[in-house]
Amino acid sequence: MSDYSTESVDLHRTYKGKVSIECKVPLLSRDDLSRAYTPGVARPCEMIRDNPAESFNLTMRGNSVCVLTDGTAVLGLGNIGPAAAMPVMEGKACLFKSFGDIDAVPLCVDVPEGDAGTQQLIAIAKAIAPSYAGINLEDIAAPRCFAVEDALQDIGIPVMHDDQHGTAIVLLAAMINAMKVVGKSFSDARVVINGAGAAGTAIAELLRCVDHEADVCVSVKEVIMCDSKGIISPDRTDLNEEKKQLLRFTNRPGISGSVKDAIRGADVFVGVSVGNLLDADDIRTMNNDAIIFAMSNPTPEITPDEARRGGARVIGTGRSDFPNQVNNVLAFPGIFRGAIDARATRISSRMKLAAAHALADAVGEPSPDRVIPDPLDKSIADTVAAAVRHAAEESNCARA
Amino acid sequence: MSDYSTESVDLHRTYKGKVSIECKVPLLSRDDLSRAYTPGVARPCEMIRDNPAESFNLTMRGNSVCVLTDGTAVLGLGNIGPAAAMPVMEGKACLFKSFGDIDAVPLCVDVPEGDAGTQQLIAIAKAIAPSYAGINLEDIAAPRCFAVEDALQDIGIPVMHDDQHGTAIVLLAAMINAMKVVGKSFSDARVVINGAGAAGTAIAELLRCVDHEADVCVSVKEVIMCDSKGIISPDRTDLNEEKKQLLRFTNRPGISGSVKDAIRGADVFVGVSVGNLLDADDIRTMNNDAIIFAMSNPTPEITPDEARRGGARVIGTGRSDFPNQVNNVLAFPGIFRGAIDARATRISSRMKLAAAHALADAVGEPSPDRVIPDPLDKSIADTVAAAVRHAAEESNCARA
Repeated sequence: MSDYSTESVDLHRTYKGKVSIECKVPLLSRDDLSRAYTPGVARPCEMIRDNPAESFNLTMRGNSVCVLTDGTAVLGLGNIGPAAAMPVMEGKACLFKSFGDIDAVPLCVDVPEGDAGTQQLIAIAKAIAPSYAGINLEDIAAPRCFAVEDALQDIGIPVMHDDQHGTAIVLLAAMINAMKVVGKSFSDARVVINGAGAAGTAIAELLRCVDHEADVCVSVKEVIMCDSKGIISPDRTDLNEEKKQLLRFTNRPGISGSVKDAIRGADVFVGVSVGNLLDADDIRTMNNDAIIFAMSNPTPEITPDEARRGGARVIGTGRSDFPNQVNNVLAFPGIFRGAIDARATRISSRMKLAAAHALADAVGEPSPDRVIPDPLDKSIADTVAAAVRHAAEESNCARA
Repeated sequence: MSDYSTESVDLHRTYKGKVSIECKVPLLSRDDLSRAYTPGVARPCEMIRDNPAESFNLTMRGNSVCVLTDGTAVLGLGNIGPAAAMPVMEGKACLFKSFGDIDAVPLCVDVPEGDAGTQQLIAIAKAIAPSYAGINLEDIAAPRCFAVEDALQDIGIPVMHDDQHGTAIVLLAAMINAMKVVGKSFSDARVVINGAGAAGTAIAELLRCVDHEADVCVSVKEVIMCDSKGIISPDRTDLNEEKKQLLRFTNRPGISGSVKDAIRGADVFVGVSVGNLLDADDIRTMNNDAIIFAMSNPTPEITPDEARRGGARVIGTGRSDFPNQVNNVLAFPGIFRGAIDARATRISSRMKLAAAHALADAVGEPSPDRVIPDPLDKSIADTVAAAVRHAAEESNCARA
């Protein structure tokens, strides 16, 4: 498989980036100018001054989402800084437009490391909120991403870190259908998540119904989380605060060991970690009809062929050249579209779960090679948006 | 004259704002996605990480300017806040695109009053710099605008407060031609500026060659500045620090009194203040062939008819329905276009003066009713851009 590097560089150099800013209104005559700019523009300004909600009707704010990053966790490249993160943010903006008809504005900010930088990132997000209908946090390293997202839940517009929740939502949708395929129930399932960063943590929270409305959530019996040192267990002395918090709702048996120890007897393996971690023999130690989501990119934790040799029944990856691609583009355009359409002030757990169920239902009759819709199916965003909008209205997250 | 209020509101409501974000690259096939986004996008990211200057070639940064405001001095409306400022910032973005082919991104930020807010605005501008080729500060109240602009001159990309320098540059261009029309020289001229805010201060600095390369600047003999209390003079006890600084290069005779006292015997009146301030009798106290730029909007300090009755020879306003409209759109698109094309790291005095001279020269043979080009002439931005680019290269402001 080509890794598309050369073609991608050519594309970026030829187009000089992927996103442009366009003027939607006529600007040819003096009258045009007087309506779009001074003196006429004073009146819309006054109307918003007198009623801030009008900013959603009279300006680009009503359809725009900021794609905000500090460049600390970009793709598999790590902390490459804000300028180098821009190609990803522009790509995201293109997907927002193409799939969700949302005007997404990339914004890459340079803030220092440590808590001072975290606080500055929070302050920037709060300050820019009047310009947008929502903020999509992107590629922010854990644990900063948790602190930033938490601090922004009451700023009056939806704020979501896609690397956490976008991934978790699509994964949950795929898992709902995979469980149907193998005939198992969530309430009996043991799930192992390898990777305790942004995505892994959000997946664990979603699977264990942390902070979720009980009537709509799926709750798996047991989640075991692993990081690069092995199972996150009470006897570990090297855990940071965020990982200690995971023990509130994961690893209730209190087991220790490596990821290979963890998957023994498990029903589902979720990899958001590094490639080439497991082989067929490892899969053979899992429960029958194992479900594998090996989402490390570009090299999965185990290849589909190898997993199948070990007896896995449903296998998904992050790659487009294998079946069951777990791709965030299935979630974030529809989630923000629905949130914007509902004028939601936040993205509630109910909205996330609604997105996952809508995505799962969109498959129709799931099969081992099809537990999740095709990421290129542009009708999916509308389906997700409708479900999210409905959930926003149900959970009273819509603006009065 | 219609003030265009109703039509403007209709326009804004119909189009839901004036600016959209578009994707320039194809996104139809799996291959398209792999080039524009993962996995291909990793390579452009790495190239920028290894050589940050590549961000100007491989991302939207190379052609984009942030139109940044805190909403504290919007049009004549004053401090209406960030959300209400958006229609103006979007209008500005439309002008940037239409006249300068620049992708301008409106950003309205909410920062507190006082020095803490000023520092936060500076911090935000520094943090977002990696996303843009330049920052156009807009509608920021004096004296904050001075502190913010000063603090951002070394961040590696051009930062200009358009309300100051855009206005000053276009005014200077108009004045160069007006002086030709009346056959006077700058070095003999007495100029009165009424209004000591952002624009008035920048005009005074430009006319008195403050911080400007002597070989290219015009320097008028005397500038008297007035604010709402009258002439800014050494005997005033109510002057803030910024106005005290103006006395370093204005009002060398040390006169006191009202604006009407100031214009007695003056050659040029520049109004950036409030409407209906002067009448024909006031103009009669000025020197022969008086030049009047009455730029208060929508009501000029004196109407052209009234000024003419008082003996004024050249009259300009901020309005499109009178001759000689002093309109910033003649300057900012070309200035930023030229600065971007030169990869300038700042907008130097030489570049500003080059823009003014290029604008003045673009008129050809000036006459009383034509001392400045038509703001709708879209060829002007290219002319200004070429001059600014050349000046950037001469003043070593271009990126190595």
